[in-house]
Amino acid sequence: MNTFGNLYRLTTYGESHGAAIGGVVDGMPAGIAIDEDFVRSEMARRRPGQSTLTTARSEADEVEFLSGIFDGRSTGAPIGFIIRNTDTRSGDYDAAALWYRPSHADYTYDQKYGFRDHRGGGRSSARETAVRVVGGALAKLVLAQKGISVKAQLLQVGNETTAEGMEALIRCVKEEGDSIGGVVGCTVTGCPAGLGEPLYGKLHAALGAAMLSINACHGFDYGSGFDGIAMRGSEQNDALVRHSDGSIGTATNHSGGIQGGISNGEPICFRALFKPTPTIMRPQQTVDKEGNVGTLAMKGRHDPCVALRAVPVVEAMAAMTILDYYMMDCAARPFHTPSPQP
Amino acid sequence: MNTFGNLYRLTTYGESHGAAIGGVVDGMPAGIAIDEDFVRSEMARRRPGQSTLTTARSEADEVEFLSGIFDGRSTGAPIGFIIRNTDTRSGDYDAAALWYRPSHADYTYDQKYGFRDHRGGGRSSARETAVRVVGGALAKLVLAQKGISVKAQLLQVGNETTAEGMEALIRCVKEEGDSIGGVVGCTVTGCPAGLGEPLYGKLHAALGAAMLSINACHGFDYGSGFDGIAMRGSEQNDALVRHSDGSIGTATNHSGGIQGGISNGEPICFRALFKPTPTIMRPQQTVDKEGNVGTLAMKGRHDPCVALRAVPVVEAMAAMTILDYYMMDCAARPFHTPSPQP
Amino acid sequence: MNTFGNLYRLTTYGESHGAAIGGVVDGMPAGIAIDEDFVRSEMARRRPGQSTLTTARSEADEVEFLSGIFDGRSTGAPIGFIIRNTDTRSGDYDAAALWYRPSHADYTYDQKYGFRDHRGGGRSSARETAVRVVGGALAKLVLAQKGISVKAQLLQVGNETTAEGMEALIRCVKEEGDSIGGVVGCTVTGCPAGLGEPLYGKLHAALGAAMLSINACHGFDYGSGFDGIAMRGSEQNDALVRHSDGSIGTATNHSGGIQGGISNGEPICFRALFKPTPTIMRPQQTVDKEGNVGTLAMKGRHDPCVALRAVPVVEAMAAMTILDYYMMDCAARPFHTPSPQP
Amino acid sequence: MNTFGNLYRLTTYGESHGAAIGGVVDGMPAGIAIDEDFVRSEMARRRPGQSTLTTARSEADEVEFLSGIFDGRSTGAPIGFIIRNTDTRSGDYDAAALWYRPSHADYTYDQKYGFRDHRGGGRSSARETAVRVVGGALAKLVLAQKGISVKAQLLQVGNETTAEGMEALIRCVKEEGDSIGGVVGCTVTGCPAGLGEPLYGKLHAALGAAMLSINACHGFDYGSGFDGIAMRGSEQNDALVRHSDGSIGTATNHSGGIQGGISNGEPICFRALFKPTPTIMRPQQTVDKEGNVGTLAMKGRHDPCVALRAVPVVEAMAAMTILDYYMMDCAARPFHTPSPQP
Repeated sequence: MNTFGNLYRLTTYGESHGAAIGGVVDGMPAGIAIDEDFVRSEMARRRPGQSTLTTARSEADEVEFLSGIFDGRSTGAPIGFIIRNTDTRSGDYDAAALWYRPSHADYTYDQKYGFRDHRGGGRSSARETAVRVVGGALAKLVLAQKGISVKAQLLQVGNETTAEGMEALIRCVKEEGDSIGGVVGCTVTGCPAGLGEPLYGKLHAALGAAMLSINACHGFDYGSGFDGIAMRGSEQNDALVRHSDGSIGTATNHSGGIQGGISNGEPICFRALFKPTPTIMRPQQTVDKEGNVGTLAMKGRHDPCVALRAVPVVEAMAAMTILDYYMMDCAARPFHTPSPQP
Repeated sequence: MNTFGNLYRLTTYGESHGAAIGGVVDGMPAGIAIDEDFVRSEMARRRPGQSTLTTARSEADEVEFLSGIFDGRSTGAPIGFIIRNTDTRSGDYDAAALWYRPSHADYTYDQKYGFRDHRGGGRSSARETAVRVVGGALAKLVLAQKGISVKAQLLQVGNETTAEGMEALIRCVKEEGDSIGGVVGCTVTGCPAGLGEPLYGKLHAALGAAMLSINACHGFDYGSGFDGIAMRGSEQNDALVRHSDGSIGTATNHSGGIQGGISNGEPICFRALFKPTPTIMRPQQTVDKEGNVGTLAMKGRHDPCVALRAVPVVEAMAAMTILDYYMMDCAARPFHTPSPQP
Repeated sequence: MNTFGNLYRLTTYGESHGAAIGGVVDGMPAGIAIDEDFVRSEMARRRPGQSTLTTARSEADEVEFLSGIFDGRSTGAPIGFIIRNTDTRSGDYDAAALWYRPSHADYTYDQKYGFRDHRGGGRSSARETAVRVVGGALAKLVLAQKGISVKAQLLQVGNETTAEGMEALIRCVKEEGDSIGGVVGCTVTGCPAGLGEPLYGKLHAALGAAMLSINACHGFDYGSGFDGIAMRGSEQNDALVRHSDGSIGTATNHSGGIQGGISNGEPICFRALFKPTPTIMRPQQTVDKEGNVGTLAMKGRHDPCVALRAVPVVEAMAAMTILDYYMMDCAARPFHTPSPQP
Repeated sequence: MNTFGNLYRLTTYGESHGAAIGGVVDGMPAGIAIDEDFVRSEMARRRPGQSTLTTARSEADEVEFLSGIFDGRSTGAPIGFIIRNTDTRSGDYDAAALWYRPSHADYTYDQKYGFRDHRGGGRSSARETAVRVVGGALAKLVLAQKGISVKAQLLQVGNETTAEGMEALIRCVKEEGDSIGGVVGCTVTGCPAGLGEPLYGKLHAALGAAMLSINACHGFDYGSGFDGIAMRGSEQNDALVRHSDGSIGTATNHSGGIQGGISNGEPICFRALFKPTPTIMRPQQTVDKEGNVGTLAMKGRHDPCVALRAVPVVEAMAAMTILDYYMMDCAARPFHTPSPQP
């Protein structure tokens, strides 16, 4: 289950403190110019160590493409890529070898596999999201040719919704050695109507699964979402209208661009909730593998608000999902015969 | 994409006003006693026409099992079943043939397929959820043998959270010919630690996709979810403890029974948000297929709050998901070799 | 694993002596005129009891379509269908409840599921192939619009390759209460170049898996196949030529229309080998579930040469495979950008 | 479609003349000791340049494992690995940039993708099979713990079936600058009864698809196969017997260890046919991309009989398939309830 997607697929590997992380993009359309600078700029947006608001861990994140590209363009063959791990101070995590970190995946990985790479969370580390960003950047290159763009931003941190408030809160939380959750909003524009595969591949179900697969994501909604809980149907329904250019659209967009699981041509809008990172610099009660009770005090580097760095990851997962569903929609269209055959 | 699941799989078919709806359950373990009374009782919970709070449409919902059962027990072969449609007053929906119903799937199905069965929403009707309940009932029979139970309930309607308040609000909305959204909560108890398939098959991502695939579901969260947005990591983290019986667990359950995408043995808790049903008895502005602007006044029967009837559907989708992931976890376990080989 | 295909998918259910067999076709393009007479004529080709060469079992094989069709055309929604079983003399098979029939699936089903429906082979009966023929007939309706046709024929029975020889041999074997194997050849014409998904979805690998999934199929080859084992590369290679209409093709077709796993525009040619049906009217040594050794003498009806009735099943599986891969090829094409972007 | 398998999955990337080839093994059970020497020895069996019978191309084939292994044992996380390409004399292939090589994938790749990496066959090169051998070697390590072994050998070259005859024929063909086909036989021993997933995941269908996915494989059969075409059912049927240890088995093994698509506990036996490699050192008629007719004379290195080097690849694909189906079988077993519940 380390493969994401149906027709545009990303398979990933790698642990935070192993030799490398990387992936394989399968289903990349042929002939697409691979703008490596763009891929690098996308990775830079996710990279830690850029601001005093995020973890001090510095990752060079140099991606090397290994296949599927010839003369600067995709060939349709799988694109393998690798990102070597460089700054991996395993020492910081020695305590984790003994004690289960609360609300991390330590205990559950041990329960599942009976054994784990305990260095920095191993496979469950957020380090892995760098690979998703590469897969998303390639998807964006394809979507751009169809006029589709994906844009996410941090909407809320704790109860704060202004830029200044969010920043101040993150700084405060960081000083306390604590962490805080946040909400990322994302909008896809230029997406044609018709994407989504009833019944179990509804477009919002796919987007939801994509977001919930990101580390620390604990919730998802789209359109008016949880905030619209008190709205009546008569308020929530999006009246259909005819735009001045003759096209059909909706007067409002409480449906978030998706109706019956299928895009309707309006902007696709959704939110992803991220919990506070469980890595905090305060002593916590826990147990070790043998069940001994004790107190764990973590050292090292941490992100006080992972939602902040999740922004490009949300975009990447959304871009891959939209392209995947666009391709699925294209599969059947040449065979549709809407007009009766004479 | 009318198949749900990986190893325990439900494939469905059928429109609200066609000859029948039905499905095929593939991957059913062998030798399970098929309690048809239980299946019927589960379907009765979903059936409309039972209360003045739901649609007056009366569906007999007689399920006939066609295969995969011998001497009252499952054989491991696929279980085909069929539910004939009986009460299908298509006349009520004639207007829908002409006008796109706002926030329904009419327009998007036409955009995707160029053609649709307009009677009562066709494939996009909530009628289809009866099939999910059958698939879920069979999954519950398997889970029961492992001591796992799935229980959902209506938590909130609009801003109301008490039973009396919710009922009063639904009645009020119904009288107004309007509709209202709600939130269903679900808890899975008895689930062992270890279920979930990193990285893209996280257990909560699978549950989220399952819920979001249900008609009108617009949001999902688990554990402390969106309501925990203001919590610090130090509050949100679930301290690991050793229970009196020697087992390891958590002091709190803000993680909703899932950490790193894998169940930790605590109750699994999540919520599903349902928007107000778009079918309302009030005139609405819309367009027809040619783009003419007009007003649509629907007649017929409607559910003022689909969240109410979604409760058994939420349980069904959760039961199928948990069984599916339980089976996936079992696939690898006999091969694990946690202790070093001498 | 009772679903066949990726984008055009057939899910099936049913045992030979249960209430019904049937299936769900998912991924059917929309707007296709569903010619039910054609479906019936395809089923008639497979039906037993038509000739003295095949089993006397008479199956009405009345297919009822339940969904996915509106005003005589497909809607894009899944097409559910059911075929009631009528002539099911279970009595003939009573001995099978006690004794494992040699080279049948009795013993292996018991080993896998610990329990089985022993009436007439249950799920493993060739009765199930009727459902495949329905799925294939619908696929043929789609392929016909693209000018693609699929045609199979019996090439060999035992060592006989002439029509008269094959018929005489089957009669002889039938009189002896014995059975004989055969080879079915199939040709797909009108298929465009480009179908096939390297590396693990090579078109011939998909066709091979499709054929080998048919009851009693024990071998598959394509192009010059096993008969070409003594050819040198210089003989086997298909020289590329330019046809008079300017199109590129090959001078010979030893590649069977597929090179590198991708169709090249030439006719696709392959063969499927069918073993003698294991049901024979002669006493055979075997054991029962408890391991007692004994002799089993089967009564009832049997096919002396299943290859004969496999002809329309081979076509059906080929048609579904070709359509499935055609759809997969179409998914990426709108995104390909063969010419460098300026 | 560059992923092979369902629960044990290999995803691959890489071209013969690019930077590297490699893959990701997903679903590897945890705790397995990774014997890197064994992996290397498996790769050495496939490596060209070892004998005067195969291509002179020398590949170092140094595999580097990047993830999923900790303290010498698998962790259950995906195992990423990379094999750098070193000896890639692209110059030999310059002509191929202009002229389509007959019976290669050049023309079909261009038809599918509109664009290709023409160096040495690019993605369609047999170089890629090195990655399969790594995936198979890891699978063998798991199977060995269950007492299962996979062994393949060259059975036939052209019409030659003796070791001396095969060797002489290959030498002769090589001197002529020509090539010849061959048949590889494979036997899996120690496999328990019960593996195989009816109806479309029959064990032999999976093995067939696995073999047919290997470069140049043009045919597959199992058990008595095409050679048994003249056998009667009474000869072909495998009588069930009780072995001296009380276990049930068959007196003969014409079924090749598989009945009804499910393993029966006897050795699994199948054959894979390989056509002559299309790369020959003789002038051949062909066309270029513009449709100009001409003659292509290839230089460089070639394998006169790819079947020879396919032996370890056949084993690798078989090992992965058996493990994959073993895991699928294990998924449902803990839920089976063969005895009636009281």
